[in-house]
Amino acid sequence: MTFNIREATASDVPLILQFIRDLAEYEKLAHLVVATEATLRETLFGSTPFAEVLIGEEDGTAAGFALFFHNYSTFLAQPGIYLEDLFVKPEYRGRGYGKALLARLAQIARERNCGRVEWAVLDWNEPSIAFYKSLGARVMDDWHTFRLTGEALEKLAGS
Amino acid sequence: MTFNIREATASDVPLILQFIRDLAEYEKLAHLVVATEATLRETLFGSTPFAEVLIGEEDGTAAGFALFFHNYSTFLAQPGIYLEDLFVKPEYRGRGYGKALLARLAQIARERNCGRVEWAVLDWNEPSIAFYKSLGARVMDDWHTFRLTGEALEKLAGS
Repeated sequence: MTFNIREATASDVPLILQFIRDLAEYEKLAHLVVATEATLRETLFGSTPFAEVLIGEEDGTAAGFALFFHNYSTFLAQPGIYLEDLFVKPEYRGRGYGKALLARLAQIARERNCGRVEWAVLDWNEPSIAFYKSLGARVMDDWHTFRLTGEALEKLAGS
Repeated sequence: MTFNIREATASDVPLILQFIRDLAEYEKLAHLVVATEATLRETLFGSTPFAEVLIGEEDGTAAGFALFFHNYSTFLAQPGIYLEDLFVKPEYRGRGYGKALLARLAQIARERNCGRVEWAVLDWNEPSIAFYKSLGARVMDDWHTFRLTGEALEKLAGS
């Protein structure tokens, strides 16, 4: 079996949406997915792409994906890579494909002079947390992430 | 007194670096700042700007700044705004300027069809945490943020 990683194109949108839904299902957050093929096409492959997508294939069949964008560190004055989604289909797990996708991101970070790769994991997802720690990733638990959305965001915009 | 918010230009780089250092000092993280005027100029105002900067001025004098970039939600298929740095000089605090900078970000989010504004706060920074909660922001504490950097990142890139 060979595992290959390629950049996604607009023709992968149905596949990407399926991966997003599969990941949301795994995260018990499927009710939050409002993405459609049309909105993914517009935001990922339109005039301003807001993220990049890698597709991992085993013998030509899609097995997983990684979706990422650049963040920025003011302390370093350097961009970083933020991994929003990483997913390998259950039937393809245990073959190192998740690590291979992360390794590709680490290579992209090196190519683009990025100092960091960062991502977030749900607190109950212990297998993933153990895996990430085994790679040498550090948990940033002295930081709290805040999110402003919906009515509170609208109210602030109008203030 | 009038408070005005404008977009930063390359001529603001020395000011931006001073704000970054002042914020790092406040966060007790000054030892981590390696940014220089040259690297800020390249990454913020070069061929690929990785973030945008707003300068808040009281009667024409710089009082604070906000530095942000776009992130992306796959569940929403929509970009968001990530606020990396928000800082108001001590002598200008208590006048609503921090809130005014956040409100401008909320307006930019609306203009650009972004569903969220997000940011991170150090866990001991209780005044800021109370302020953000008062705006209706939610703490995303069911998520752990991981960071891969330095030797661990190099090792993974080479694997």
